[in-house]
Amino acid sequence: MGAALALAARGVGQSWPNPAVGCVIVRGGRVIGRGWTQKGGRPHGEAVALEGCDARGATAYVTLEPCAHESGRGPACADLLIEAGVARVVMAALDPDPRTDGAGAARLRAAGIEVVTGVRAGEAEAQMAGFFSQMRRQRPHVTLKLALSLDGCLALADGSSRWITGARARAHAHLERARADVIVVGSGTLAADRPRLDVRLAGLEGRAPSPMLLGRGPAPAGWQHAADLAGLCGSGAHRMLVEGGAGVAASLLDADLVDRLLIYRAPMVLGGRPGVGALGLDAMPHGRWRAHPAIQLGPDRLETFTRIR
Amino acid sequence: MGAALALAARGVGQSWPNPAVGCVIVRGGRVIGRGWTQKGGRPHGEAVALEGCDARGATAYVTLEPCAHESGRGPACADLLIEAGVARVVMAALDPDPRTDGAGAARLRAAGIEVVTGVRAGEAEAQMAGFFSQMRRQRPHVTLKLALSLDGCLALADGSSRWITGARARAHAHLERARADVIVVGSGTLAADRPRLDVRLAGLEGRAPSPMLLGRGPAPAGWQHAADLAGLCGSGAHRMLVEGGAGVAASLLDADLVDRLLIYRAPMVLGGRPGVGALGLDAMPHGRWRAHPAIQLGPDRLETFTRIR
Repeated sequence: MGAALALAARGVGQSWPNPAVGCVIVRGGRVIGRGWTQKGGRPHGEAVALEGCDARGATAYVTLEPCAHESGRGPACADLLIEAGVARVVMAALDPDPRTDGAGAARLRAAGIEVVTGVRAGEAEAQMAGFFSQMRRQRPHVTLKLALSLDGCLALADGSSRWITGARARAHAHLERARADVIVVGSGTLAADRPRLDVRLAGLEGRAPSPMLLGRGPAPAGWQHAADLAGLCGSGAHRMLVEGGAGVAASLLDADLVDRLLIYRAPMVLGGRPGVGALGLDAMPHGRWRAHPAIQLGPDRLETFTRIR
Repeated sequence: MGAALALAARGVGQSWPNPAVGCVIVRGGRVIGRGWTQKGGRPHGEAVALEGCDARGATAYVTLEPCAHESGRGPACADLLIEAGVARVVMAALDPDPRTDGAGAARLRAAGIEVVTGVRAGEAEAQMAGFFSQMRRQRPHVTLKLALSLDGCLALADGSSRWITGARARAHAHLERARADVIVVGSGTLAADRPRLDVRLAGLEGRAPSPMLLGRGPAPAGWQHAADLAGLCGSGAHRMLVEGGAGVAASLLDADLVDRLLIYRAPMVLGGRPGVGALGLDAMPHGRWRAHPAIQLGPDRLETFTRIR
């Protein structure tokens, strides 16, 4: 399952509107097939893994329950596995899509295939957080990225912000862009910075997410536009990365829409412009964020927090 | 020397106007005397360690070069060690006080005693940072303590700040108070919080530092008062802990008087009042702060930085 999760990671930020699924086929202790959901969501990971290998009697490891519904874009993966003659299917998460939601596992069992569920399911759900968010809450999984000084500023008092963080932190932030479907900025940031929002990492240049303007338009050509948070939530994207500025950060936090907080923290004190605008809190908001291990990126530190719900 | 440093730590925040020195006397592989500089600076660590033990032929480990100058408050420690008949003196840091500054080691050598210098000198200088700061720069060693949210706020927008950090972080902050000679707040914090500035830790209640008001007076009874930074620097204190508020923090940072930064960081976003007031920077202040390993204190993290000079 570890190998299947690693393969699935290759499709994260690419597989929308489908979840990024990984699949490994093993027979007699040897890997005979491997695949992951391709760009745009098809073919699915199982179809890629089964292609060109003789899977009779084999075990298939998949990070998500194989789909039970056919669509115009391809056959149901449960049927593909049955036709291929696999003896056993080990899966991580069950598919929350109401068209499958247990029906994939049931169809496999009905065909006499041994089914094991729940193996490393937590990791799989975290990897497909955007897909699960859309299925369960009908909104994207939202990551808020902030590049802050020790005192929480995103710029000097005169507005200059290049660069608070160093090259390694900025490269990591570009990797996070490559894993998103949509990248969001507010109209203030658009006007002030004219951000390129591309992925400037060798080999990943083609993986830039779709840019979205939140707030007053007009949006530049090729951008999505959401006038408000309802529009943002209704956009259909799975994985949303919010990059700025302080007003957008505050409005998302105020609406409790932030699921993950990435803070690239530079070891300096700026006494300048705050990274988060005013929030309407009337009590200390204890217990909302779970801290994950920090990562040192040159002089800076990446602090990651996930919302406890 | 490790034992001598550990003994010296007991006097930190207590020994002013003298440095907190530790001393261990060893003969035949056995510790026969131990001492540290007592409250108010006398007796010195060497005098305490030598008292009541027969140190003929022994080795004395001291964290600072023994003093070579007599004063009305006691004899020179170099003379005490010579009279006691020690064979060898191992010392960490040399004494920067111009009345000693190598003269202590020279007097011991002239008496036929073997002298070793520089053993764990860096640790000893860090432990006596306030004393070294006064001797070398004629000002205190200044620690700025901040209790901040992830976005660098010290309070909600309405000013409420109790409590951002949890009980363990606050207990650690009281331990830092016990290690300081003077604790500084500004007039805004004094008026808003009427802080007690005591040490609320079992067994350390008597170790509260002397409180000082920085800025407009009047100061409460029993407090020191510095109208400005020159007054603060000229107060003679060795170890100064600055606790608030945002304006005081900014004025000390602007004057580059902060040697050590303690940030008690709570995992919450406040969108409220910034912990550091406006600084007059016209470029990104890279490379000023060295990060030390963080300490987890319940839900909060203590981030420590020292100024690179």
